[in-house]
Amino acid sequence: MQDKIKVAVNGYGVIGKRVADAVRAQEDMALVGVSDVIADYRIAAAAGKGIPVYASTEQALPVMADAGLPVVGGLHDLLENVDVVVDCTPAQVGAGNLELYRAHGVKSVFQGGEKHDLTGHSFVAHANYATALGRDSTRVVSCNTTATVRALTALKDVGLLSKARGVLIRRATDPWESDHSGIMNTIVPEGRIPSHQGPDAQSVVPDLDVVTMAAKGAHTQNHLHYWTIELTRPAEKQEVLEAFRAMPRIAFVRRSDGVVAVNSTVELMEDLGRPRGDMYEVALWEDILTVDGNELYYTYTVDNQAIVVPENIDAIRALTGTVDDGGESIRRTDRALGVRQDFVRSSVAAR
Amino acid sequence: MQDKIKVAVNGYGVIGKRVADAVRAQEDMALVGVSDVIADYRIAAAAGKGIPVYASTEQALPVMADAGLPVVGGLHDLLENVDVVVDCTPAQVGAGNLELYRAHGVKSVFQGGEKHDLTGHSFVAHANYATALGRDSTRVVSCNTTATVRALTALKDVGLLSKARGVLIRRATDPWESDHSGIMNTIVPEGRIPSHQGPDAQSVVPDLDVVTMAAKGAHTQNHLHYWTIELTRPAEKQEVLEAFRAMPRIAFVRRSDGVVAVNSTVELMEDLGRPRGDMYEVALWEDILTVDGNELYYTYTVDNQAIVVPENIDAIRALTGTVDDGGESIRRTDRALGVRQDFVRSSVAAR
Repeated sequence: MQDKIKVAVNGYGVIGKRVADAVRAQEDMALVGVSDVIADYRIAAAAGKGIPVYASTEQALPVMADAGLPVVGGLHDLLENVDVVVDCTPAQVGAGNLELYRAHGVKSVFQGGEKHDLTGHSFVAHANYATALGRDSTRVVSCNTTATVRALTALKDVGLLSKARGVLIRRATDPWESDHSGIMNTIVPEGRIPSHQGPDAQSVVPDLDVVTMAAKGAHTQNHLHYWTIELTRPAEKQEVLEAFRAMPRIAFVRRSDGVVAVNSTVELMEDLGRPRGDMYEVALWEDILTVDGNELYYTYTVDNQAIVVPENIDAIRALTGTVDDGGESIRRTDRALGVRQDFVRSSVAAR
Repeated sequence: MQDKIKVAVNGYGVIGKRVADAVRAQEDMALVGVSDVIADYRIAAAAGKGIPVYASTEQALPVMADAGLPVVGGLHDLLENVDVVVDCTPAQVGAGNLELYRAHGVKSVFQGGEKHDLTGHSFVAHANYATALGRDSTRVVSCNTTATVRALTALKDVGLLSKARGVLIRRATDPWESDHSGIMNTIVPEGRIPSHQGPDAQSVVPDLDVVTMAAKGAHTQNHLHYWTIELTRPAEKQEVLEAFRAMPRIAFVRRSDGVVAVNSTVELMEDLGRPRGDMYEVALWEDILTVDGNELYYTYTVDNQAIVVPENIDAIRALTGTVDDGGESIRRTDRALGVRQDFVRSSVAAR
């Protein structure tokens, strides 16, 4: 049995805290510590769970200590003891950390808020695990892009994908926020077509013919995507469903099962006992999906806080090269997290 | 000068009260009265404006009189004195009224909540005014369908439209509602693709290649549409803008003018002094619209309470045959209502 991969998480926010827990759930990984600059309930909860807490900056260390947090040391100390750091600091902040990670000889996983150029590699496990093998760093793309790539790759894998045009209705802000970014009683179109998710998906799968348009909705939970797909040939609905079924981390939902809106999936995840109600899967409506000749239409919802978590776990394995086969890494990750192929009609994990 | 067209409005709700005011604004029409079954502030407001009020049912008459409303008589009495009735009763209720209208020899305009088959004719002024001329009855299609037909007809008129695929994010419920239909903090996809608007648009323009998908958003004001259009040939953005500019009742808005979301247009309409803040136009974002080869992408917002109002006015003229030319009717209606081609950059009405 090989040694466990030693992992640090820098930035214990929406993504960081979830990645930290997911790392702790893997048999082949050890969470050495998490690092942040905050000293409030969020980081206190980490300490309360017995996770070693570090300070990301010199200034933050005394503040965190004064707040009664059991701070083990600074980020430099943490980096001395890990193989990989998952950078979950706010968008654009991460970019400033890459050199530090390199100076410590630590491989690094960044999030979708950073630019592709930072690492030169953008990651979705099923699509391009192999090209991340042994790299110094990669970037897990954003929630919307991750969902986009999963679904389009499913169709590409079976040779059905010709052209994809998507409309993304994003959540306004995260549920826990109270100070900014939220909107009420309106809907806000993004200023540019294409929105960034299309080009971003191409940073993972360059030959995708994809265009996205996006608007911000007046809700705080989950994104909703609508896709119009030109298939390479006329197909039957059953064939398309099989293609999606063959793809990890896409789970069908059905209005006939009472899953009628994005908040249905939120409640369902809680009922399934998911930590923080997290949904790692793209939840795709099987009974709304429609095929008409060579045109395919479907809609799904995306838990923006959780969908990238399993991808981060796979990215850790890819960078360290401890698992050569992406499929094997995905299976390990999904087994540990309880990822499913169907939320209602099967009571066991998917694979 | 010909006699004014004598008009009744049956159903003084969201659409009815707006149609009633719009009829009063036309030089060639006279509002003989409105009829309803309610006895509360809404109908009291009509009476307060000096609009003759009638009771739509025998049961409602004493209730309305007891509430102190100056009820002139029953719907039967009203129908004896008009040329046309605009039926704005709730969806499906209208269908039961057609025979009554016919028995009184009164022509009738129905709303989009009724089925196409009720009248055998569905109406959008620019698209098919001519085929409604002299008919016994017609049906003004719903707000979403009206906007869809206006925009697609603009492209069709100049020979640019090949195929249209739209995603419609509908408002949850009307702003004045407090008892049902509203949603909060979620977004609800419709159960079927295509949603009804695509087929409904084809009831007006049969050869449209159009598919729509729809979701209900967590806001109460205006719909937002996203369209992916396959053009008949590659085109320049300027050419597409000209096509939309040539179409009545489509007005450009721009993010650079501060119109960044659907609630911006709501505020703007109030600032322009529109009655009830009504927007009769499709508000299309000029600076988001994108053309890429033979593909066109655009987004616009629709005031679901107001957009069908000018169409109802034109439908009245078409049925009575008092104006043969649809363009002339549209100009009269739009002049009376102050319909514009641009809300910010021109201070005068469009045409």
